[in-house]
Amino acid sequence: MNVTINREAATPVYLQIASQIKGQILSGNLPAGFILPPERKLAELKKISRTTVIKAYEELKALGLVDAQTGRGTVVTEQKVPDPVPLQPAVLPMSWYPLFDKRMANLNDAVGEIMYMGNQNRVISLAAGIGDPDLYPIADFQRIQRELPITSAHLNFSPVEGYYPLRESISQLMEGRNLTVTAKETMILSGSMQGIDFAARAFLSAGDAVIVEEPTFLQAIKCFRAMGAKIIGIPMDREGMRLDVLEAQISRYKPKFIYTIPNFHNPTGITMSMARRKALLKLAYRFQVPILEDDPYGDITFDQEHPLPIKALDAYGYVIYLSTLSKALFPGLRIGWTIAPEAVMKKFLLLKQITDLHVNTDSQILVDRYLRDGCYEEHLKKILPLYRKKRDAAAELLRQEQSAIPFDLPAGGFYFWCRLPYAVPQKKLLALCGEQGMIYTPGNVFYPQESDGEHWVRLNFTYERMDRLKQGLMVFIKSVKKLNEWNGTRDAPTGAPPIV
Amino acid sequence: MNVTINREAATPVYLQIASQIKGQILSGNLPAGFILPPERKLAELKKISRTTVIKAYEELKALGLVDAQTGRGTVVTEQKVPDPVPLQPAVLPMSWYPLFDKRMANLNDAVGEIMYMGNQNRVISLAAGIGDPDLYPIADFQRIQRELPITSAHLNFSPVEGYYPLRESISQLMEGRNLTVTAKETMILSGSMQGIDFAARAFLSAGDAVIVEEPTFLQAIKCFRAMGAKIIGIPMDREGMRLDVLEAQISRYKPKFIYTIPNFHNPTGITMSMARRKALLKLAYRFQVPILEDDPYGDITFDQEHPLPIKALDAYGYVIYLSTLSKALFPGLRIGWTIAPEAVMKKFLLLKQITDLHVNTDSQILVDRYLRDGCYEEHLKKILPLYRKKRDAAAELLRQEQSAIPFDLPAGGFYFWCRLPYAVPQKKLLALCGEQGMIYTPGNVFYPQESDGEHWVRLNFTYERMDRLKQGLMVFIKSVKKLNEWNGTRDAPTGAPPIV
Repeated sequence: MNVTINREAATPVYLQIASQIKGQILSGNLPAGFILPPERKLAELKKISRTTVIKAYEELKALGLVDAQTGRGTVVTEQKVPDPVPLQPAVLPMSWYPLFDKRMANLNDAVGEIMYMGNQNRVISLAAGIGDPDLYPIADFQRIQRELPITSAHLNFSPVEGYYPLRESISQLMEGRNLTVTAKETMILSGSMQGIDFAARAFLSAGDAVIVEEPTFLQAIKCFRAMGAKIIGIPMDREGMRLDVLEAQISRYKPKFIYTIPNFHNPTGITMSMARRKALLKLAYRFQVPILEDDPYGDITFDQEHPLPIKALDAYGYVIYLSTLSKALFPGLRIGWTIAPEAVMKKFLLLKQITDLHVNTDSQILVDRYLRDGCYEEHLKKILPLYRKKRDAAAELLRQEQSAIPFDLPAGGFYFWCRLPYAVPQKKLLALCGEQGMIYTPGNVFYPQESDGEHWVRLNFTYERMDRLKQGLMVFIKSVKKLNEWNGTRDAPTGAPPIV
Repeated sequence: MNVTINREAATPVYLQIASQIKGQILSGNLPAGFILPPERKLAELKKISRTTVIKAYEELKALGLVDAQTGRGTVVTEQKVPDPVPLQPAVLPMSWYPLFDKRMANLNDAVGEIMYMGNQNRVISLAAGIGDPDLYPIADFQRIQRELPITSAHLNFSPVEGYYPLRESISQLMEGRNLTVTAKETMILSGSMQGIDFAARAFLSAGDAVIVEEPTFLQAIKCFRAMGAKIIGIPMDREGMRLDVLEAQISRYKPKFIYTIPNFHNPTGITMSMARRKALLKLAYRFQVPILEDDPYGDITFDQEHPLPIKALDAYGYVIYLSTLSKALFPGLRIGWTIAPEAVMKKFLLLKQITDLHVNTDSQILVDRYLRDGCYEEHLKKILPLYRKKRDAAAELLRQEQSAIPFDLPAGGFYFWCRLPYAVPQKKLLALCGEQGMIYTPGNVFYPQESDGEHWVRLNFTYERMDRLKQGLMVFIKSVKKLNEWNGTRDAPTGAPPIV
């Protein structure tokens, strides 16, 4: 409502309002049938009393300009001969659900606030998928902002494939990962999630099969399901995806592609061995199935170099590689990238044009400068020892309960993947922890079949400060013990190994 | 390749390289089968001579660590007993095209660089879809950056539905457009294009019909086609979409929704009359077809208030409203929004989670401050007279050829929509203008059926500086005259009015 109030003027506020609305009605800007805002709403928005608004509306009613209609509100009346066709025939409310495409039913999943920790001061979150915000390189970015203040280049369109200097910087970064690519083979994305979505849109239709590790990144499952695909989960062992099972399933389901997180897998923390990577490639070649390689955590490594990307072993162009700065650096600027065969890049570019056009220009410029200044390597040198300390502190606490809550020590990444005693029901544990102000991610959400993963939990160790991390783990451990009917005696599952 | 060169060291560079690569091979980090970067590439990347790389590789060959294989390159050799299964059986190159979903074939359109004007110093672009970069509010944003330097909040996740204060600011902005909504009914998007894409994904499958104006925004056509939908184009007259045709087509095709650009339509510049808006709503109610209202240009108005959104007339929740700051402000930070019924918002939120998660946090914070400081209204007061001047200057030039190149004066927005003489072939005109360093957008791309629009052109008047704008128009006018066989005599089409 285009209404300005001048509290200094002589005219009473209600008359100011009525007179302005009258002017808009008479000029035709507010046509017959237009419903004025509800009194309470206008009062809120203009920060005046409801009485004032009521008086204004009464004035307009007296002038015959508006009318109070039950069930509708205060409505602008016709100023001329009534329209022979009644303005409001019986209108049915819009019935949305039958209209949505049936694929959309797959997106009814309500995983809640896993991504946004708005209430961090109250709840201890071991469910987060991000690093420690206290470690964000604020000083560096403030410096870079001062050196590169906004110009019209920052605010203009940038190329769909990404700001060229950033593509160069990323190809340099990839060189450090032993994957030698040029800037032209690199495309910047709004996070690596966008790469997963583009792959899903490029390849999948209702009924197509896609291979994933089981368990796997929950948003990837949702994304593939949103295209109507059938998700075929392949169990893992300590070396990664089990290729004997994979081979059988490829033959049976003829999948469009294989989605894998080979480095510090989310949620299990497993890193695919070199032998397994080569064997996976051989299978892909044999069955002519491409591989979507998702590598968000490879730089979060405590003991070794960034593991060699599968793409670096691929001489035949079967691998689409995705990575991001969201985990090692920060998530808020949405910077990811893909390195893919040319035919795939072309489709991704076309998809980018009909989604968000290009990645935020200003952010690409800042991040490029950050990389070129060598800040990223320095950043990793700083954060990795700190994350390692948190990991070790968490492991020490959990080890005290090793018999009841077995886990493998993660060599990198963000998470512990722990098995619960059979006697502990997931929902009750979630609720009990929640009551004590702590949340974690239940294992179910990472499985294509949600009933699997009932006895697994993912615990993040990077997000919270050390004291809160320990506190949250103590809540978790105590809650598990409380719900465990066997009261700490050795959990005796039916022979399944601790991780898988 | 993780190789560091110390030019100060005593050891020759080639030996440094060979020794580091040897270390990585022996430690297993570079496995058998790994192909070293081509000599030229490594030389480029490390800024050394190719000879040096060749010497390094020769050294490694001499040590038996690598092998030169024809057709593949310099390959790390097996260090142990050869793998009984040959590492490289005959591998077929990946055959991508049969693998892409058939929908993707609809995205083979090559419209070229309409969105990114990289060569602005050379080519005069009347094809641009953006405003004048010289008018971007640089001073304001530099001030805001100084007042709000990057903190961890800027770099962290923000809510999927948008940074809450920005949702408030946007709802205030909408209030000025006579649409009263609360922050909670508003969702921030990465540009309004994303809203079009979300609507397409939520509703459309192969074979579904969607109604559009004919002509219409070309990226919307591509987006709907990417979901496999059938595009039903409805011709327009000076009041907007023709509802007699619409009614017939709705009955026939049972579309999922109607896509309309009611304010300063792209490409025609037409604004839907108030009577037509109300009648459109009535039709939508009668047939229970929702309306996707796209309003990027409504603030670029020379003669009137921002036209009343259709959503402001909709009391029954049939309208999904989209808008953006990309046209009136700048495109590079990708800020748009939607106001939609709750059922639709829920789907959009789920789609946001599996695409780019949330809009760039830092940009939302800056833009929110810009709006709260009242800068946007000031910005419009400044740019609208300048754009009006450009429009008038362009109109004056074109009017000299009114008989051959008829057009209606646009009351707002960015474009002239002009009809060519029948004798002028579009491709030749494009080529002739291109040779003289000027580009425009041929009308074909805006039509679902590309053979339509052969005789129409869209000319942007906002992007170029005044002198280049005039220069580009003179090139255009002269080229049209040259190709027009009737040499300036009155064009006599078969009775169709100048616009549509």
